[in-house]
Amino acid sequence: MGLTIGLDIGGTKVAAGVVDAAGRIVEKIRRCTPAADPEHTAEVIAAVITELCGRHQVQAVGLGAAGFVNSQRSAVMFAPNLAWRDEPLRERVEVLAGLPVIMDNDANAIAWGELCYGAARGYDNVVLLAIGTGIGCGLVLGGRLYRGSAGMAGEPGHSRVVPGGRMCGCGNRGCLEQYASGSALVAQARDFARRRPEGAIRLLQLGGGHPEGIGGPQVTQAAREGDPAALRCFQTVGGWLGQGMADIAAVLDPACFVIGGGVSEAGGLLLDPARASFERALAGRGHRPFADIKIAELGPDAGLVGAADLARLG
Amino acid sequence: MGLTIGLDIGGTKVAAGVVDAAGRIVEKIRRCTPAADPEHTAEVIAAVITELCGRHQVQAVGLGAAGFVNSQRSAVMFAPNLAWRDEPLRERVEVLAGLPVIMDNDANAIAWGELCYGAARGYDNVVLLAIGTGIGCGLVLGGRLYRGSAGMAGEPGHSRVVPGGRMCGCGNRGCLEQYASGSALVAQARDFARRRPEGAIRLLQLGGGHPEGIGGPQVTQAAREGDPAALRCFQTVGGWLGQGMADIAAVLDPACFVIGGGVSEAGGLLLDPARASFERALAGRGHRPFADIKIAELGPDAGLVGAADLARLG
Repeated sequence: MGLTIGLDIGGTKVAAGVVDAAGRIVEKIRRCTPAADPEHTAEVIAAVITELCGRHQVQAVGLGAAGFVNSQRSAVMFAPNLAWRDEPLRERVEVLAGLPVIMDNDANAIAWGELCYGAARGYDNVVLLAIGTGIGCGLVLGGRLYRGSAGMAGEPGHSRVVPGGRMCGCGNRGCLEQYASGSALVAQARDFARRRPEGAIRLLQLGGGHPEGIGGPQVTQAAREGDPAALRCFQTVGGWLGQGMADIAAVLDPACFVIGGGVSEAGGLLLDPARASFERALAGRGHRPFADIKIAELGPDAGLVGAADLARLG
Repeated sequence: MGLTIGLDIGGTKVAAGVVDAAGRIVEKIRRCTPAADPEHTAEVIAAVITELCGRHQVQAVGLGAAGFVNSQRSAVMFAPNLAWRDEPLRERVEVLAGLPVIMDNDANAIAWGELCYGAARGYDNVVLLAIGTGIGCGLVLGGRLYRGSAGMAGEPGHSRVVPGGRMCGCGNRGCLEQYASGSALVAQARDFARRRPEGAIRLLQLGGGHPEGIGGPQVTQAAREGDPAALRCFQTVGGWLGQGMADIAAVLDPACFVIGGGVSEAGGLLLDPARASFERALAGRGHRPFADIKIAELGPDAGLVGAADLARLG
């Protein structure tokens, strides 16, 4: 099989790429999607596919979708951070695009991309954590994607880490996602800037003078400059992430964690406190090896490369 | 292969059985073991094997050990509730007994027994939780035992569920095992009897008049009689267990949980509150099936039957 299209479908945008059999991206485009309108999202996806098919000989399409995908991989059953509910996305796109379409959870696609062409090459048991708005997760166990019985494995972001803790988009309280995600990083920085503006001068400067202007890139930039408040935000979020990895390791004992998603671009700012916390918290430490913890190598393209490769496998 | 011996090795006793190729126990014996003396434990195990070999034609031996077993399945690296540290148990027993010996985590052996001959028959993805002193766990993923990269998968009892919570034998605080185990059940009942003896009259009667006399069987008996304090203990521990299962399901999405171990003999007293809590806490509930939750069928024999079967597989 020659070229396939991979799509990474998030809440606000679609990234699509034509990918060859060696995992190389031949062409890549991006479109915005309306988060609250699932039907229109399918139309945007189909239009992107049609556009790319006009320029390339494409044989199949792979979708990576930010939600709980069912075991038939035909529908997004639930998405904590999007409007999808029992949404038959695969068939909708297949009908509109006129090509064979496969679908998977977006983090599964990223994990597969990193396994085949990125940071997870050579590992059998890998946990991919995509740290962005939420926490995506793809599991590679015994060299294969593990999807669970209903297709909904790999959602440690919705394990409870604080009884009675922060509200989560999934309807529960105290989910890991509320403590170790990009949203948590930004919420913490904004909250600090609101309560103690005199300690958050640099963050507020970068945010255009008001707390709501502070986003992930601003916190990262301030931390890179050595701003203590921004560094503290990374230490807190990284600490929760490391504890979350220790809790996952207690269950799955992977050889490697790969950290992707937007927040992973902060590199050591996130990874150093995460690794320290992981090594403090791992049960049985001293009597077992620590898993490797690596930054994703394919960056924002991992999802579409992985989805395109999964489409090739059929 | 004809007969094999399976052993279930806990902190205070060894149960050993000669098992045939259909999973039937031909003969079974029990011995006490000194928790603080790993070397002597190996001698007790070898003596049990030698005794059984005197009466049966045995071809291999399987050990199920209550600890973190390494990936070569040669040593118990760490045991939160026992004195084993980097203990080369398999070789010790092999030298003493003069037979081929395989070893696995005790909960893995139980999970395998329940998969082949018990409550988990016909399921591909199963989480076995053995609720006793601690929480043992065996994972069957894709129809096979999943042991992780270092052999130490399946320890959700040492995931943190309460930041800064109760001390655990593993050295951490707030581990699930401190809230959802038989020890937690007994600790809660004793604590209540100490603080509010007038509300714990039946528990204290059964305990011979003092809190330290209250054990798991006493709490179960009082709860069966409808004693409110004992019922409350089961509701609390069952509630934590259900939340723990929801957290495991967020990661692994199994089709079935099998609950074994001593506390599972309480049946619905434990399972009803656990199931209610699981169904309240599962992320994405309403858009996915609930996993089946079943009581182990092989009871206290599951571990030795499973270990004997694993010895047969080699």
